[in-house]
Amino acid sequence: MPTEKSNPTMKDVAREAGVAIATVSKVVNGLPVGKEYRVRVEKAIKKLNYQVNSYAQGLRNDRTRTIQVIIPNLTNPFFAELVNCIVKELAQRDYRTMLCMTDGDPSLEQAHVLTAKQHMADGIICLSYNPTLQVPENVPLVSIDRYFGAKIPCVSSDNYGGGRLAAEKLMENGCGRLAFLRVGTSLASETNKRKDGFVSACEERGVPYALKIIDDGTPYSEFEAFLREHLHGGRLDFDGIFCVTDALAFWTRNTLQGMGIRVPKDVQIIGYDGVRRFGTADLPCSTIVQPLAGIAETCVDLVLDGHPEKAPSLICLPVSYACGGTTRQ
Amino acid sequence: MPTEKSNPTMKDVAREAGVAIATVSKVVNGLPVGKEYRVRVEKAIKKLNYQVNSYAQGLRNDRTRTIQVIIPNLTNPFFAELVNCIVKELAQRDYRTMLCMTDGDPSLEQAHVLTAKQHMADGIICLSYNPTLQVPENVPLVSIDRYFGAKIPCVSSDNYGGGRLAAEKLMENGCGRLAFLRVGTSLASETNKRKDGFVSACEERGVPYALKIIDDGTPYSEFEAFLREHLHGGRLDFDGIFCVTDALAFWTRNTLQGMGIRVPKDVQIIGYDGVRRFGTADLPCSTIVQPLAGIAETCVDLVLDGHPEKAPSLICLPVSYACGGTTRQ
Repeated sequence: MPTEKSNPTMKDVAREAGVAIATVSKVVNGLPVGKEYRVRVEKAIKKLNYQVNSYAQGLRNDRTRTIQVIIPNLTNPFFAELVNCIVKELAQRDYRTMLCMTDGDPSLEQAHVLTAKQHMADGIICLSYNPTLQVPENVPLVSIDRYFGAKIPCVSSDNYGGGRLAAEKLMENGCGRLAFLRVGTSLASETNKRKDGFVSACEERGVPYALKIIDDGTPYSEFEAFLREHLHGGRLDFDGIFCVTDALAFWTRNTLQGMGIRVPKDVQIIGYDGVRRFGTADLPCSTIVQPLAGIAETCVDLVLDGHPEKAPSLICLPVSYACGGTTRQ
Repeated sequence: MPTEKSNPTMKDVAREAGVAIATVSKVVNGLPVGKEYRVRVEKAIKKLNYQVNSYAQGLRNDRTRTIQVIIPNLTNPFFAELVNCIVKELAQRDYRTMLCMTDGDPSLEQAHVLTAKQHMADGIICLSYNPTLQVPENVPLVSIDRYFGAKIPCVSSDNYGGGRLAAEKLMENGCGRLAFLRVGTSLASETNKRKDGFVSACEERGVPYALKIIDDGTPYSEFEAFLREHLHGGRLDFDGIFCVTDALAFWTRNTLQGMGIRVPKDVQIIGYDGVRRFGTADLPCSTIVQPLAGIAETCVDLVLDGHPEKAPSLICLPVSYACGGTTRQ
């Protein structure tokens, strides 16, 4: 197996080039140096394969080309796919990713945000569940899916439009009795707007609907109880269900099938997120697709701009519908 | 929205405590200082909420408590779950994760490995597809699933044992004509042993088997052609198939069902990896489960030990079998 010697130091380069260390330092840092010296130093750097210590450089410039990404976990395929897009987008601009996972723990999120500057991150992209997150002024922060106020830009999919689109697609597919299922924090967040959009489309068309909303951490058996309450003689009161995530839509499909309800024949289901199985295979359900690459690109644009406080406070990117087998089309 | 002032500097702490900056520096760096001075500095640090610049500290100590994790992508749920476990394990030991994605590009993997020291990573955990990866001597590296030689510890699931287990489970479930499907690099890697274990169990029991192995990048239509060649009068020549990953097992199940073959009634399928849908829901297929938390813990142990060259060169952790609906049990 091939190996490499330890990196040479600036001193080694100076000796090789026959110049002072200060001269090497000037060349490395782009300061003016006589042409002859520059050529000698550059030759020595090449010959020794000297690598600039970008860490020390970062300390001098107060810039490390590192962005801290804060996310609950990578177990949820939506988060994994989102981080995948962000890391790729940052790498394209020659930025590195410091990845912090929080499992949605508010105190851990707070700690990561407050120590970002200490760890010399140039900025933060954060998907936080913590509505009282304290954001330091000395490091730019871009939030995903949670609005913190006018000075912190928030990037999300068009949750309201997505909720409307789900209701409209169910109605187009012939559904006339709808339900919305949601698990999530009761605290204000952009994803709450999925419900608002859904309700507005139902009311506009005069289509009856039911809502079942439970808090994070509540067992899914509450949804099962809700579905059973609405089961009469082997038939469900609803023929179309919008679920707040694909994970919930997938669970709902399996649960209904376990009750002898046929999906999509008896009941059609639409989820939200649009992450494909194994990254590239089919969709687990019909869904409202979030534009993850666009969300990642927008977050990176804003955080690298350095003045996110001057950016729009909320940027919603358009969603689309995709049939994944739990609707007729 | 609450905000925070910029961090105070060491100078501010010195002024507040009425001591020299050098005294503050000594306290912060754990060097001996008269007790009275230490108490004054500690009080000032607390009062001003001074945060040590761990970046500058890292530069002095040549230690940053940062590990570079190199992985092809997070789109594949197996990689996402593995990184999830590694980041958690590192965080528990107060280490941070610099995440690099490579899409399996050998030159990108090489670049990340060679610049790790330059970016002051204390070590590298790497899942590489590059058999000729040059590993520098100045930074500890632990490899997952690829053996680079005696000096670089490689951690993997027990691929050979897993291949045997898959064959044995199919036979226990009544299968008598087996096949193994694999997509992957033809270069030596630990995952090749899945085939070797499978073959050894088949030969030991005198059970006939077929192998279909295609290179990364070859379209899956080659597998479909292989399956169709072995389809006679609506029946497949095989009644048990072992697939090298769950992703391939999932594809194979769908493809066979599309040909009118019932799974698991006519053909039983076992994959490899064991990542659950949406992180917590059911398995996409029956599978050999990799011990991801154990792999992560072992990698972190080895990379933080600082002398991986003294560690065993190959560590294989035990796998287990889980029924996920594509076998009878």
